[in-house]
Amino acid sequence: MKIEIIAVGSELLTPFFLDTNSLYLSERLNDLGQDVSFKTIVGDNREDLLFCIRKALAFANFLLVMGGLGPTEDDITREVMAEALHRKLIFHEEILQKIEARFKRRGINMPATNKKQAYVIKGAEIFENKNGTAPGQWLVQGRTRIVLLPGPPHELKPMFEEFVWPKLHELELGHMARKTLKTTGLTESEVESLIHDLYPKDRDDLRLTVLASPGQIELHLTAFSPLSARDSEAKIEAFARPILDRLGDNVFSTSGEELEEVVGALLRDRKKTLATAESCTGGLLANRLTNISGSSDYFMEGLITYSDQAKNLRLDVPLALIQSYGAVSPEVAQAMAVGVRRKAKASFGLAVTGIAGPTGGTPEKPVGLVYAALAQEHGADVEKNIFLGKREQIKFQSSQKALDMLRRYLLKGNLR
Amino acid sequence: MKIEIIAVGSELLTPFFLDTNSLYLSERLNDLGQDVSFKTIVGDNREDLLFCIRKALAFANFLLVMGGLGPTEDDITREVMAEALHRKLIFHEEILQKIEARFKRRGINMPATNKKQAYVIKGAEIFENKNGTAPGQWLVQGRTRIVLLPGPPHELKPMFEEFVWPKLHELELGHMARKTLKTTGLTESEVESLIHDLYPKDRDDLRLTVLASPGQIELHLTAFSPLSARDSEAKIEAFARPILDRLGDNVFSTSGEELEEVVGALLRDRKKTLATAESCTGGLLANRLTNISGSSDYFMEGLITYSDQAKNLRLDVPLALIQSYGAVSPEVAQAMAVGVRRKAKASFGLAVTGIAGPTGGTPEKPVGLVYAALAQEHGADVEKNIFLGKREQIKFQSSQKALDMLRRYLLKGNLR
Repeated sequence: MKIEIIAVGSELLTPFFLDTNSLYLSERLNDLGQDVSFKTIVGDNREDLLFCIRKALAFANFLLVMGGLGPTEDDITREVMAEALHRKLIFHEEILQKIEARFKRRGINMPATNKKQAYVIKGAEIFENKNGTAPGQWLVQGRTRIVLLPGPPHELKPMFEEFVWPKLHELELGHMARKTLKTTGLTESEVESLIHDLYPKDRDDLRLTVLASPGQIELHLTAFSPLSARDSEAKIEAFARPILDRLGDNVFSTSGEELEEVVGALLRDRKKTLATAESCTGGLLANRLTNISGSSDYFMEGLITYSDQAKNLRLDVPLALIQSYGAVSPEVAQAMAVGVRRKAKASFGLAVTGIAGPTGGTPEKPVGLVYAALAQEHGADVEKNIFLGKREQIKFQSSQKALDMLRRYLLKGNLR
Repeated sequence: MKIEIIAVGSELLTPFFLDTNSLYLSERLNDLGQDVSFKTIVGDNREDLLFCIRKALAFANFLLVMGGLGPTEDDITREVMAEALHRKLIFHEEILQKIEARFKRRGINMPATNKKQAYVIKGAEIFENKNGTAPGQWLVQGRTRIVLLPGPPHELKPMFEEFVWPKLHELELGHMARKTLKTTGLTESEVESLIHDLYPKDRDDLRLTVLASPGQIELHLTAFSPLSARDSEAKIEAFARPILDRLGDNVFSTSGEELEEVVGALLRDRKKTLATAESCTGGLLANRLTNISGSSDYFMEGLITYSDQAKNLRLDVPLALIQSYGAVSPEVAQAMAVGVRRKAKASFGLAVTGIAGPTGGTPEKPVGLVYAALAQEHGADVEKNIFLGKREQIKFQSSQKALDMLRRYLLKGNLR
């Protein structure tokens, strides 16, 4: 298959936005052993879009077009695709009713402009949009299959999964297996030097890509098979095994889970609870933990104590301790962890205190200096870190470190 | 000018990498009043690249091609462009000497493969690469100007600035000004119906793009002038004025600031302080507020009270109130806001309680039901919301609503 992805939207041609949907679409097409040949980004301009669709129809036999299906005047994908295919747009009363009902659920009358979203290209199969108003469309023109999808990722992804994926799967295109090993606690160079001799020689058979970001190094493994999904699965397991041996418990996830999910699952499994006390992370640690559905089972509460008073009043950290060692110190981090654990009557207390920057650093206590502490029934451990990067990167790495301390403690199994 | 940017590289078609060079190139072209019409991403594949260049030559009169100028076998941009233009590649001894000297400075012998980088398309003007080995090339074919640039950003950017920018500047292409209006509190359709008659008729003069995401609608305005930067600035101000009048205080930012920055600046300006009490947002509200450097000046503390006990113990919300109305109720939201304001001795208390989902909803209290409350010296206001979307989107919209309640209160000026 020759595949082209077209992203429609003038904002994607400005310096401010990148098309990120295509990463997701590429990944899902790769899952079927299919590579994308072209990605084209075009603005909300009739002439340009028409040129672009005509060119794609001459080249691709699978064409994914996303964006430009909204209710506004610059949403023109429907009309231009109909023109390129020499087909009419047909009004569908039942689509209009669904859109109206969606507005009604929110207690709003449907604006007149949304009516245009009930028009569909003649001959199209219609994909219901359960997360928005613009339905998707599936068209066949000669040897070319065409899919129109709404641009917002939270509409595009579920629609792709529910409607497009099964249709592609039926075509029996080939098989690809992927595995992502997520690690924390090692630098990119450390990961590289541990596994450099395990890089595959034949890129058509196996692939390994290392993706580094502050606080997390990911290894993306891919295996291809023309035979079966089972064969590509077997290949990837054999590929992953020696890598996992080398990296050990620095790998926190092998099936896509984020660190907060892994920690949450461990807490639930061990029937333990957690409370957090944050200074420099300012709620990020609790926010990550509570992004996981069902986190109320183990997450008791979180205190964001920026000021010395709050550390004292909420967490019983003695003001004398803060005055002696400073708010950013191993002593205060430990006292915060112990304090929040006791106040919340939780199995564990996690605390973070540090200097997220860009201001507030000194030669002795530079921006990026962060103490993370874990309190448990036997006491409290604390770790000193110096993180590089901008404010939000330092906050992320700090939360990552705190979660990882708890993960490693839970893994040691000294709780049973 | 019709401009197309082509990024060459198979890695840019995987799920792991995005072409980011084009953001920089778009910005610099925008500075000259020029829009990019197309961005095309293509792999290291002769047939695909040739198709792509031929199509671009039929369309664009300025074509920027980046990547694929390296020494390896899959670097084919030079050869394919020469083929598309029906021109020969000419060997340049002086380029080879520069590449050899570059390796010598690093104490390495030049690998034989690098010799191909000394070949240049006949008739090209050569741009020296001071940060790598592949020189850039500038070609004129009929009415079309073509630039070949190396892919690594630290090679591409200095080469663009030193060689391409002055050549473009000479062409006296024009000037562009941009403005982004960020709104919250209106749906996309409501924004649309307020401003639909203000859409510019002539897209070569003014442009308006509406970008919607849950909780935030942005209007991106652009104005062009052939005369001067000053003229394009004046045009955009005149264009923005009636739009701002219509949208009123639903617009929270006109220079790119996020809502948490705007609220932070208002609090600092009014010398007021804030504390937060979060249930369903789980720390997101505090995390957003503390992403702003200097937020410790006005952000006192944040309490994340998931459980009834925590709401009672930390915020003095009476257990009887929770039992009567439920934890997700206007009464409890107000009590949380009042409680955190008093406990933290802050000017304002912001509280959020709701059902972020995907589980936990009931027919009476569905997923997405969220109460946001603002406590101030005279009492507490509460607003009921029904948000759609996934857990993280409901959390975001909830935090957005809470911040916006505070913003609107601060704007009313009843504080002075």
